[in-house]
Amino acid sequence: MKHLLEEVQKIFEAEQFLAQPEELYRPIDYTLRLGGKRIRPLLLLAANQMFGGKTDDVRHAALAIETFHNFTLLHDDLMDRSPLRRGKPTVYSLWGDNSAILSGDTMFALAWRYLLRRDHPRLRDILNTFNETAIEVCEGQQYDMNFEQRDDVTVPEYLEMIRLKTAVLLAGALKMGALYAQAPDGDIQRLYDFGIHLGLSFQLQDDLLDAYGDTATFGKATGQDIRDNKKTYIYLHALQVASPEQQERLRQLFNNESADTEAKVREVLDIYGRLNIREAVEKAIADEFDMARKCLDEVRAEEAAKAPLRELLETLFDRKK
Amino acid sequence: MKHLLEEVQKIFEAEQFLAQPEELYRPIDYTLRLGGKRIRPLLLLAANQMFGGKTDDVRHAALAIETFHNFTLLHDDLMDRSPLRRGKPTVYSLWGDNSAILSGDTMFALAWRYLLRRDHPRLRDILNTFNETAIEVCEGQQYDMNFEQRDDVTVPEYLEMIRLKTAVLLAGALKMGALYAQAPDGDIQRLYDFGIHLGLSFQLQDDLLDAYGDTATFGKATGQDIRDNKKTYIYLHALQVASPEQQERLRQLFNNESADTEAKVREVLDIYGRLNIREAVEKAIADEFDMARKCLDEVRAEEAAKAPLRELLETLFDRKK
Repeated sequence: MKHLLEEVQKIFEAEQFLAQPEELYRPIDYTLRLGGKRIRPLLLLAANQMFGGKTDDVRHAALAIETFHNFTLLHDDLMDRSPLRRGKPTVYSLWGDNSAILSGDTMFALAWRYLLRRDHPRLRDILNTFNETAIEVCEGQQYDMNFEQRDDVTVPEYLEMIRLKTAVLLAGALKMGALYAQAPDGDIQRLYDFGIHLGLSFQLQDDLLDAYGDTATFGKATGQDIRDNKKTYIYLHALQVASPEQQERLRQLFNNESADTEAKVREVLDIYGRLNIREAVEKAIADEFDMARKCLDEVRAEEAAKAPLRELLETLFDRKK
Repeated sequence: MKHLLEEVQKIFEAEQFLAQPEELYRPIDYTLRLGGKRIRPLLLLAANQMFGGKTDDVRHAALAIETFHNFTLLHDDLMDRSPLRRGKPTVYSLWGDNSAILSGDTMFALAWRYLLRRDHPRLRDILNTFNETAIEVCEGQQYDMNFEQRDDVTVPEYLEMIRLKTAVLLAGALKMGALYAQAPDGDIQRLYDFGIHLGLSFQLQDDLLDAYGDTATFGKATGQDIRDNKKTYIYLHALQVASPEQQERLRQLFNNESADTEAKVREVLDIYGRLNIREAVEKAIADEFDMARKCLDEVRAEEAAKAPLRELLETLFDRKK
């Protein structure tokens, strides 16, 4: 996996993102140079090489998937008014709302430019995979925003939302990598399912880290979801196991603007603590990782070829940020 | 042309734009049902049929180009804070900023879904044409925003901005239509150039109508560009021919927020009147139309096949809204 990650880094280091007008491309360059985990291009390369692909054949697709992902971050951060991303100021907070909108739009188109750079016998399938994924990501973000206005979101609805918002893009990256390598359809589907479970566990981890992670390593302020009244998996799960009084109190806390937000964060974490929510969510995450492992087991490829994805899975399972 | 316009209307009437989540697709349906002139799909169909294409082969592309265009309108109206579009409230003013952002993003992806619906021997060329045009449109919008902050925009810079922001999409629609019909490369280029001149004249007309059009027929408030301190072609041309005193006064008026914006509009129009700006801009528009006509003359197709584009050209030349 380390080898693949270096390949991904090299791909991004070698790429020129600046162009004219500078006001449009500067925020794009800033965003794509911020780093981040580069998981999506990594997944694309890993799936591709599992079936004999070469980095040179898919570097454009690796750039595309990460550029698309960062486009969604620009717009999501603006819509959610998130001041920080990867520990650095977000684009809208540095250059204003309009920059985030327009540079984001341009990144979506730049992702397409990368994808169209090379022809391929299965190009239309690849492009369809990419685009249907993009539509699902938008739908997921809309459900996420809808849920902020609703008081009756269920755990299955929440899981479907994060499937769309987060998991399908990981799954789509794997599918695209496998399509480029012209893998058999069954294995493409197994890798896709692997990506869905990986994505779900990844997002549930994100919810957990928001509440229990360390600000310095996580790169975001801890407890932000609580401050934002976000009905995450933790909150929804807590509601399910809470006493009527605790339910009532949690709903109150998540439906009002608190004058003292830090006191609110402390009180919510205290209720979570008494309900052993952290342990329960860790169990749910481990279950999703198990399902991901099973999907990967079933892919018909050499064990050595699966090693990078196995390693990635275990690294993500242990992540602290 | 009337026949083609009816075809375009039918294509949009037959299409279903609503889906789940409703909060995402309602603004899309609203926008795509507002009507408008549908010039881009009309151009695409006209270019296609000039070389023997059939409506059924390109209806998906007609939907794509109009959906893309409307995506840019959603985001532009938000960035420019325009309350009205086609005489109706804009999406951000009805559903909020985040709806305009996210439904807009989704429309860009829906445009791609339409384009990918059918295979074609020249699909990659078609997709590249579409996407490079999209990037240019974003660049044009950025230049437009930059110009609001600048005091020294020249007429050639302004023309390049409107080429990117408006003309390339008309030209791109024509090129795509011709590519679908597998027209000869030379004719594709001539139609593209026809579209550039048509687009430039169209945008210069828009600038003129903003100052001199009738609010009821134009669907936007007259003088809005003056209120917004937009350095349009009219303003830049006026600066070129104004006396030093008039230049000074125009710059003052366009660099400050006026307490009495209606008095400002009147004073600017009064200066324009004394400089005969309206007539000069009308001349510039007529020159662009002439160049468009010449490009169309040079396309190697039957005169009967060119009739719809000729008619469109003359209709646009006479437009009042």
